[in-house]
Amino acid sequence: MQGTYRALWLNSDKYLVVLDQRVLPFEEKTVVLYTAQDAVEAIKNMTVRGAGVIGNVAGFGVYLASRQTDGELKALRLLAEDIRDSRPTAVNLMWAVDRMLHLATVSKLEGQLLTDLLLEEAIRITDEDCQRTEKIAEYGADIIEEIMLSQELDRFNVLTHCNAGWLAIADSGTALAPIYEAKRRGIDIHVWVDETRPRNQGANLTAWELLQAGIEHTVIADNTGGHLMQNNMVDMVITGADRVALNGDSANKIGTYLKALSAEDNDIPFYIALPSSTFDFTMHNGLDDIPIEIRSENEVKYMRGLDSEGEVQEFQIIQSESSALNYGFDVTPARLITGLLTERGLCDVNTQSISTMFKDLI
Amino acid sequence: MQGTYRALWLNSDKYLVVLDQRVLPFEEKTVVLYTAQDAVEAIKNMTVRGAGVIGNVAGFGVYLASRQTDGELKALRLLAEDIRDSRPTAVNLMWAVDRMLHLATVSKLEGQLLTDLLLEEAIRITDEDCQRTEKIAEYGADIIEEIMLSQELDRFNVLTHCNAGWLAIADSGTALAPIYEAKRRGIDIHVWVDETRPRNQGANLTAWELLQAGIEHTVIADNTGGHLMQNNMVDMVITGADRVALNGDSANKIGTYLKALSAEDNDIPFYIALPSSTFDFTMHNGLDDIPIEIRSENEVKYMRGLDSEGEVQEFQIIQSESSALNYGFDVTPARLITGLLTERGLCDVNTQSISTMFKDLI
Repeated sequence: MQGTYRALWLNSDKYLVVLDQRVLPFEEKTVVLYTAQDAVEAIKNMTVRGAGVIGNVAGFGVYLASRQTDGELKALRLLAEDIRDSRPTAVNLMWAVDRMLHLATVSKLEGQLLTDLLLEEAIRITDEDCQRTEKIAEYGADIIEEIMLSQELDRFNVLTHCNAGWLAIADSGTALAPIYEAKRRGIDIHVWVDETRPRNQGANLTAWELLQAGIEHTVIADNTGGHLMQNNMVDMVITGADRVALNGDSANKIGTYLKALSAEDNDIPFYIALPSSTFDFTMHNGLDDIPIEIRSENEVKYMRGLDSEGEVQEFQIIQSESSALNYGFDVTPARLITGLLTERGLCDVNTQSISTMFKDLI
Repeated sequence: MQGTYRALWLNSDKYLVVLDQRVLPFEEKTVVLYTAQDAVEAIKNMTVRGAGVIGNVAGFGVYLASRQTDGELKALRLLAEDIRDSRPTAVNLMWAVDRMLHLATVSKLEGQLLTDLLLEEAIRITDEDCQRTEKIAEYGADIIEEIMLSQELDRFNVLTHCNAGWLAIADSGTALAPIYEAKRRGIDIHVWVDETRPRNQGANLTAWELLQAGIEHTVIADNTGGHLMQNNMVDMVITGADRVALNGDSANKIGTYLKALSAEDNDIPFYIALPSSTFDFTMHNGLDDIPIEIRSENEVKYMRGLDSEGEVQEFQIIQSESSALNYGFDVTPARLITGLLTERGLCDVNTQSISTMFKDLI
């Protein structure tokens, strides 16, 4: 938890502070989480989002549960279950809760000693994410350099969907990590930022992150990427993931599949960047097995923005009489993915390659 | 101009009245066009939009130009050129202006006689659209019935992008015409309505049209269609077009190409519905030849909606420091289109079939 920018940190009383991602980019506001219930609420209402950060908050949530229950394992287990159930698609969430509970059980500690142990472990989970994203940054930037060399490009255009920067995974994100690293290496890079309806994480979060980092970018409607790819305006597509199955099928923000189809149709490399904690090795076939979260139709029907007086407001954009359906994610089949960019390097997208590279984790 | 619902009509002084499509669905407002300049402005600022209606307004615009210039051919020609240039992608616009000017020239009339002639011709252009859409409705509903029979479906799910209903082409639209007809035939039909960013013609116009007609529908983010198609929730995709080349490549609202890719990937029939006036037989290869309009980035950065007090306002939804790029259309390659649904019936999507079916028009 040492980066320039942080999505979460501990205050002096060791409560968890998170950046409120619902009000960016128009307001920068923090929220303090004091209890496991606060963590559940922050995950559910999307104060925090992004596979990694959700996992981190879940980890700290179990620590907060221990603090609340004075380190009483049975009581904290019940609270941890609520955290585990707060979002169905993000595998890091389940993974982090299970890791915390496993440690609590085997440690045989209780009271303050257990709480202290869980605090250390939650910090460790986040620190491990940071280290993984640094590796992803380097391997990814190497790929960008290779493509630029082989195609003799002076400038590199990446398209990304949703937000997989440091707001999503500490410390530099997954999909955005190679972009940050490319910028550090002096590469002339430009990012096409998918708006990412219905919650606009691209327009609200990715564009904001890139602006902080001084990286050139252009926001586009989600509909636009296909046309750009048809017209040689995209050199690579890279996104994060919320859950990747053993066969490489990858669940990510709704609409990712459409960009993968278009990348394939135009011979453009399409990468998914993820820390190994995003794999769900229990799922053999992502298209069949990964559950897809249906969220409130109000996320489609209402949108946040600045009114003419510069106040942030929620406004209605679809007539009340029409209903809306809001799937949070879709699954991109392995066949459409050029490679999985992980902290261990680039992995081919099939069961055998994934099983081999991550066999110690399965 | 006899339908239940109309996007344009003449008032008692024979000026053109149009429904202001920018404020639907939250307000129903009309605008009166008195001059050719008014017509240009209404087309440019999208008071009216949709391939057919733009063509109709262009036709009436030439009539208004004649009225303004007291039927002086040279002066009205200059005004007509401005109408012709008001939107680059919609071929019906050029077609209607050229037809009006051709008639004006060969008629050798001037003054009030010329103006009267042009009024009749503008009405005729719109009436011809009405007749064509009735045919498209019937041929399209026949296809729906065939698919339902062959797949033993009790209920039919159509996905559409943008608006190609009666707000786009008098009298019942193109893509929506078969849906209206299916409803009349008693078919249990449900429509997935793509929001259609950045201008939200799906959410604002198509959903509103379907509500008026009592047709069941659900608004979805543009990102959602792929997931629905992967999960057998879509039986047919149908859209309109703004310009179709001789080889069948079809320009339509940005994002259409992505839905066509997804339909192909999931073996779902993908139809483009169009009156023959939307063909541009001078363009042999749509992907290479059709010019794509770039519109203001403000259409991406601002959105209209209802504030908490129920007032229609424009909101800023992207931070000021980020730029946006706004292509209005993309081109769907012929290979991804199952068939072209025209007033002459279903046409295969290749140069030979199109040349044969429409040889009298080429």
